[in-house]
Amino acid sequence: MQTQRPAVVLLSGGLDSTTVLAIARHAGFELNAISFRYGQRHQHEITAAQHIARQAGVRRHVVVDIDLRQFGGSALTTDLAVPKHDSVDEIGPDIPVTYVPARNTVFLSFALAWAETLAARDIFIGVNALDYSGYPDCRPEFIAAFETLANLATKIGVQQQGIQIHAPLLHLTKAEIIERGRTLGVDYSLTTSCYDPSPTGLACGHCDACLLRQKGFAEIGLSDPARYAS
Amino acid sequence: MQTQRPAVVLLSGGLDSTTVLAIARHAGFELNAISFRYGQRHQHEITAAQHIARQAGVRRHVVVDIDLRQFGGSALTTDLAVPKHDSVDEIGPDIPVTYVPARNTVFLSFALAWAETLAARDIFIGVNALDYSGYPDCRPEFIAAFETLANLATKIGVQQQGIQIHAPLLHLTKAEIIERGRTLGVDYSLTTSCYDPSPTGLACGHCDACLLRQKGFAEIGLSDPARYAS
Repeated sequence: MQTQRPAVVLLSGGLDSTTVLAIARHAGFELNAISFRYGQRHQHEITAAQHIARQAGVRRHVVVDIDLRQFGGSALTTDLAVPKHDSVDEIGPDIPVTYVPARNTVFLSFALAWAETLAARDIFIGVNALDYSGYPDCRPEFIAAFETLANLATKIGVQQQGIQIHAPLLHLTKAEIIERGRTLGVDYSLTTSCYDPSPTGLACGHCDACLLRQKGFAEIGLSDPARYAS
Repeated sequence: MQTQRPAVVLLSGGLDSTTVLAIARHAGFELNAISFRYGQRHQHEITAAQHIARQAGVRRHVVVDIDLRQFGGSALTTDLAVPKHDSVDEIGPDIPVTYVPARNTVFLSFALAWAETLAARDIFIGVNALDYSGYPDCRPEFIAAFETLANLATKIGVQQQGIQIHAPLLHLTKAEIIERGRTLGVDYSLTTSCYDPSPTGLACGHCDACLLRQKGFAEIGLSDPARYAS
């Protein structure tokens, strides 16, 4: 039997990264999932990520502790209020307060460090530049720049080249992401997307993440299997 | 009085980063120093960094806890032996086992996150591509790629552009670095460079870092003020 090529997959426990995990599995990679306890309000997503990783049969799953609260600056890691809306059309074009400074740069850096020790040249991330919250570090040019950096920054990059940052959802709508996941057998009831869940992990239904997710399911005529507070 | 422009300075407590701190101060920046407790053997360098930061009169100093030991892969964070030599000429051209996978990428990512919350557009790092250990993430092309990334990754980068990664030691020899520091009043007896110090913080005198440092002082006819075990 051929040895599978190892890949590192960023797994938040949300709809997007869970779909990406299924895509990497379908492509035949050995799965190494990485999650972050970074001071987010929604610690519930770590539990979801652990459950999802187990069900996907990942080889390894590490949860990295980093404290981005030391720096402040985001509604996801401080006491700033998470913006709520009644409909997805109310989401403005500006970068919202839920933006966490340099979050994906930090996350990808850790993924890169781990990839190097695993001799993995493939890193998967579920960023999406269509139905998203307007974060700068979810754009194609950011992903391309990180890939360039990765090949200059590491021993494996310099000696073997070919580190790839895979962002297979980059140009998909939320509805397309869900359809892709369904063909790969993803159970979306395990995933959690809410920026401001209740203490027991019920989704709020009104933050950007909840609204974008609900819209995605609605567009393909399905109801969102997430558990909502109301 | 004009408000000083804030800068974030990576400070390890070593000779290079301490010189960079002095350079940033001399350039008139408000100093915000960041150090990392990353599972390194030489925890002593954190104590040195705190002492140096105080003496330099930094505005803020944060010590970030991250556990790169989770990933293994380096003599600086695991039980692999740190290579020792009798002279600097014995240091080979290969990337040594003291290389920590993606370390500077991880460090710069945190510096970037903090810079963004401080509205700082200037980040200083003491990498050096001449008298160095051959790490890929100490090269000019790495620094340039990170600067490109930083301006794509962040709200401040996208909206205002102009995030700069300053690496003022990049093309200096160790002797030139020391001379520069001395003109700025750096007290090198406070700095610690050793990869494998004794429990009380005495330098080993035989790792790459000790040998490069001693050579630097010798070239300008000075003795290294670091405390050595033998």
